Amino acid sequence: MLVSDACRAELLAVGSEILLGQISNSHAQFISQELAKHGLYVYHHGAVGDNEARIQAAFEAAVKRSNVVIVTGGLGPTADDLTKEALAKFLGRDLVLSEEALAHLNQYFAGRNRKMPDENRKQAYCIDGGTLIPNENGTAPGQYIFARNVHFFLLPGPPLEMRPMLTKSVVPQLLSVFGGKQALISRVLHFCGIGESDVDEQVQDLTANENPTVAPLAGEGEMLLRITATSSTRDAALEAIASVETDIRSRFGPYIYGVDDDTLPSVVGRVLRERAETLAVAESCTGGMLAGLLTDIPGSSDYFLGGVVAYDNRVKESLLDVPSTVLERHGAVSEETAKAMAEGVRSRLVTTYGIGITGIAGPSGGTPEKPVGLVYVAVSDSFGTEVHRLQYRVSRTQVRVRTCKQALWRLLNRIQMRSSESPQSSS
Amino acid sequence: MLVSDACRAELLAVGSEILLGQISNSHAQFISQELAKHGLYVYHHGAVGDNEARIQAAFEAAVKRSNVVIVTGGLGPTADDLTKEALAKFLGRDLVLSEEALAHLNQYFAGRNRKMPDENRKQAYCIDGGTLIPNENGTAPGQYIFARNVHFFLLPGPPLEMRPMLTKSVVPQLLSVFGGKQALISRVLHFCGIGESDVDEQVQDLTANENPTVAPLAGEGEMLLRITATSSTRDAALEAIASVETDIRSRFGPYIYGVDDDTLPSVVGRVLRERAETLAVAESCTGGMLAGLLTDIPGSSDYFLGGVVAYDNRVKESLLDVPSTVLERHGAVSEETAKAMAEGVRSRLVTTYGIGITGIAGPSGGTPEKPVGLVYVAVSDSFGTEVHRLQYRVSRTQVRVRTCKQALWRLLNRIQMRSSESPQSSS
Repeated sequence: MLVSDACRAELLAVGSEILLGQISNSHAQFISQELAKHGLYVYHHGAVGDNEARIQAAFEAAVKRSNVVIVTGGLGPTADDLTKEALAKFLGRDLVLSEEALAHLNQYFAGRNRKMPDENRKQAYCIDGGTLIPNENGTAPGQYIFARNVHFFLLPGPPLEMRPMLTKSVVPQLLSVFGGKQALISRVLHFCGIGESDVDEQVQDLTANENPTVAPLAGEGEMLLRITATSSTRDAALEAIASVETDIRSRFGPYIYGVDDDTLPSVVGRVLRERAETLAVAESCTGGMLAGLLTDIPGSSDYFLGGVVAYDNRVKESLLDVPSTVLERHGAVSEETAKAMAEGVRSRLVTTYGIGITGIAGPSGGTPEKPVGLVYVAVSDSFGTEVHRLQYRVSRTQVRVRTCKQALWRLLNRIQMRSSESPQSSS
Repeated sequence: MLVSDACRAELLAVGSEILLGQISNSHAQFISQELAKHGLYVYHHGAVGDNEARIQAAFEAAVKRSNVVIVTGGLGPTADDLTKEALAKFLGRDLVLSEEALAHLNQYFAGRNRKMPDENRKQAYCIDGGTLIPNENGTAPGQYIFARNVHFFLLPGPPLEMRPMLTKSVVPQLLSVFGGKQALISRVLHFCGIGESDVDEQVQDLTANENPTVAPLAGEGEMLLRITATSSTRDAALEAIASVETDIRSRFGPYIYGVDDDTLPSVVGRVLRERAETLAVAESCTGGMLAGLLTDIPGSSDYFLGGVVAYDNRVKESLLDVPSTVLERHGAVSEETAKAMAEGVRSRLVTTYGIGITGIAGPSGGTPEKPVGLVYVAVSDSFGTEVHRLQYRVSRTQVRVRTCKQALWRLLNRIQMRSSESPQSSS
């Protein structure tokens, strides 16, 4: 494929509020996703303020490296909406009144029983030689112009206006220019219970590949591998990904818990619903975070009955039936207490599975025998109870987040063991 | 202030996953906010893929327009982590092994009873002439180097590692270079229980001011006003802020719950600790999120004893003593159930205060009488129990977050009422 045939797109968001951090540039992710779906490459994201000189400078840099520039924002009626003006100057073109755009504007305001404010006239001007991109949801039309060997697309900032314009107008036009030449497809595998560097060591042969590419992504308490294939057809790309995925799964098995948009809570939920089984959790150091993650999933009430946040020992006794002798003899942070918590919440709430978590999230509260970051996670079911000892050396929040993910991943393994009916190996 | 003295910062995020739209570049907003707080200006955001040539090209463009470049991502141990390598090449410098960084790495893995994988050695290399930025929460140290008249900061991608490094190391260093010429001080007031537009309307006279400036910032379930004063001296700036703050407090009173880094859980914690009082929570639709927010505060075990996540009605009965007659007659989502939950968890856990939450977070589960977004929040103490009816029209996650914040804010008001000793006005 000739380089000149390939889409080399970049995105530019215009708006000082982005640079001040008052709003996030969510357009970049949305547009990148839409283009990636169709194998249209994005090589650069940028954001600049409402400043004509800096917007022009951004165009100057863009035309050196890209053949598609998609700009969002700065098409409004106010004095600091300068995107169109900056591009016209950059290209040395005039802005000409578009009767069509003016009619659309008048129509828009008439439909709201309002007279068009004079300042909105500005939005009816179009860069000479360019074409308008219709905006069904607002006053600012988009603009398309091919100049300096670059396809420029100007889109308004409000997401509800920009998004349909991108999918209905920009993407089809890009496909008519660059499409059909190749498909680019990605698939993400989610890992838990194994370190990023351990995974990377075992896939170095794959990460060296050109196509499909395999790239590790770090996560909090989990990690991801992204497989990306480019091919002349979508099916060929999917095939290439499938064979690499099979290879990777053969190397990591249970450490891979999901794909693409899966999360541990969503996968646990799916599995429990399929099996018509239920879960309850007893939390000490995670303090409700695990229950919060589980109930963030719509419909989780089908399989998650509830839980107990037993921060105080008296709560462990009164609501979870943890024997005071266990707490006295082994302490609140112990294998025995975690076990009693999991079994207690499971029997109190009458569920298929019970999870018990106790530990020292820190920053204080540690001892030489039981340092900060020591956590016990217990998973209980009718076959018995297994307890896992974890030792973290990270911040309080990280200990809590990683513990929650570990607990869900251990539960998934427990369920898999259970379905493979080898109870004796399960505790 | 001379322009040459002014901070002209730009942000660069490195990672192909950003350009593919698989993750959003949330760093850009966070870093921009932190810098804006201190009057450090950001003029450009950028994102590039894991490609050494394109990362170098981004540096080439950056040094032409900026005197501060903050880069996030690409410091990991894997082959496609190239940020440090790209900057070293761009500056024509060597990468030299840092014994200090190597010791930190070995320590990090030793703490996890693991041998350091060989590939992690890569993270111990530092650009010649640069200095390391300590990373308390991960393996990748950051790097700082001043070259080509630009202050380069390289930070790791994981937010929980990057954020403390930015606030503890990068911002103070930037202030030592660019700050101090003129005192620029900001103070943020946190509001809850009142709409953003209501606040905006009542401070229009203040937001029109030049100095101090008053800027509204939207939050989730709360809103903020940032007061920023510039003056020749720190004291003068503080004085100017104080008088504006007094004015604002006289307008909004109890709706202002905190300042600067306060959060509702931290303020509730401070107040409860001061009063040596305790709290327990019973959650249905928030499903543990409120307990999770409370226990995210170090030392929360001093005042937070625990809670019950009563997702299933049987749990409301068995662990919270909600009478089955109440559930039958009024339903799980009702004023009476919320009241019984708050009183039940307070008496079961023997605390000063009990909070009960029940509602319909959605997206499904609503009825004409009890639509999605209907939530009851009850706060109970020795004086009695008050129940608040809330009706939201937002997403499931937003309903849950806003409900948690409402509950904490209502508790704060209850405590204030209580300390002003007017029990009869409290239910």
